[in-house]
Amino acid sequence: MTVHTEIKAGPDLSRLRRFVADLADVVDQGDDEAAILKAGEVLLTRLIATDDWLPDDYARPNPERYQQYLLHCDSRERFSVVSFVWGPGQATPIHDHTVWGLVGVLRGAERVESYRRTTTGFELTREPDVLHAGEVDAVSPTVGDIHRVSNGCDGVSVSIHVYGANIGAVRRATYAPDGTPKPFISGYANSTLPNLWDRSR
Amino acid sequence: MTVHTEIKAGPDLSRLRRFVADLADVVDQGDDEAAILKAGEVLLTRLIATDDWLPDDYARPNPERYQQYLLHCDSRERFSVVSFVWGPGQATPIHDHTVWGLVGVLRGAERVESYRRTTTGFELTREPDVLHAGEVDAVSPTVGDIHRVSNGCDGVSVSIHVYGANIGAVRRATYAPDGTPKPFISGYANSTLPNLWDRSR
Ligand SMILES: [Fe+3]
Ligand SMILES: [Fe+3]
Ligand SMILES: [Mg+2]
Repeated sequence: MTVHTEIKAGPDLSRLRRFVADLADVVDQGDDEAAILKAGEVLLTRLIATDDWLPDDYARPNPERYQQYLLHCDSRERFSVVSFVWGPGQATPIHDHTVWGLVGVLRGAERVESYRRTTTGFELTREPDVLHAGEVDAVSPTVGDIHRVSNGCDGVSVSIHVYGANIGAVRRATYAPDGTPKPFISGYANSTLPNLWDRSR
Repeated sequence: MTVHTEIKAGPDLSRLRRFVADLADVVDQGDDEAAILKAGEVLLTRLIATDDWLPDDYARPNPERYQQYLLHCDSRERFSVVSFVWGPGQATPIHDHTVWGLVGVLRGAERVESYRRTTTGFELTREPDVLHAGEVDAVSPTVGDIHRVSNGCDGVSVSIHVYGANIGAVRRATYAPDGTPKPFISGYANSTLPNLWDRSR
């Protein structure tokens, strides 16, 4: 009955499995965004405190653009967990999310410019921030939803993001510097997810 | 911002995504096993009515033994969806599940022998049954949990199973013909799951 023979040895996915279960518990307790962001920040901070669990396939940069790899999506699409991989110099356009999100840096650094709309375009809501490995930031229509993110170091950076929806399928927008929105559905770069659920791994 | 360039064209996973979401709705309504089995049977029957959605990687037989591929696991491990792939002549030992389960044949046929324990071993609870494509059977400690399953046709058979737990991690048992139990955790044959969640696919 041994069915393990074809499984490649890989990193210990139990940290990510535990994060998913704990976040599901939080979301099951209600949809108070402030409570979710507060509890989620604690969980995400713990997840990214140790960089030994993300399989290489979900940490691979693409020379042409940053990559967005889905790691887990909740059965009812109440939340999703994603790894973002930034090659040197890579950046997003200005964009929104329309749902709550948490951004935690696992490896390298991420530069975040947070914006609000004005009559003529955008203005920064605070000084651009560089998040280093272990640090977490939040977005949402309530706490500030529009930003531009870029790699904050010369090498490859990896961050782990959590959102209050299946983020790759959300209809949202990127923005030109003058504020003109453009419809945007990000999708995902990966067609297969890591199997977190084999407890023998 | 296009991130779709690396995605291989593949089958339409929307049927499976819808099944997962609908089953999560059912499980969210309570843990009445009879109600879950009844609603789940309707959903699984609809899922397996059309054989156009399972990616080939999760329908691949292994010449040495039947394969158990995880397709989705709920965030809180309340349920899992698995494809079983049977090569010619392949069979399980007699085994139990300890949780509710639904078995639906997608392709080929599955022969099911249902047992109950006796003082000297096992006896059949009904005539061995051959399930053909489109047909669904149920197991659980309440409705009958011990069976032996084998390929019911000369080619490759594929069935879709749903269980009320992360079945690959459940501590359960296989049984010798004399009734001697042997601890058993099935695991999974796959280290990556299909990405059901990219709605552009
Ligand atoms: Fe963002
Ligand atoms: Fe079984
Ligand atoms: Mg779930």
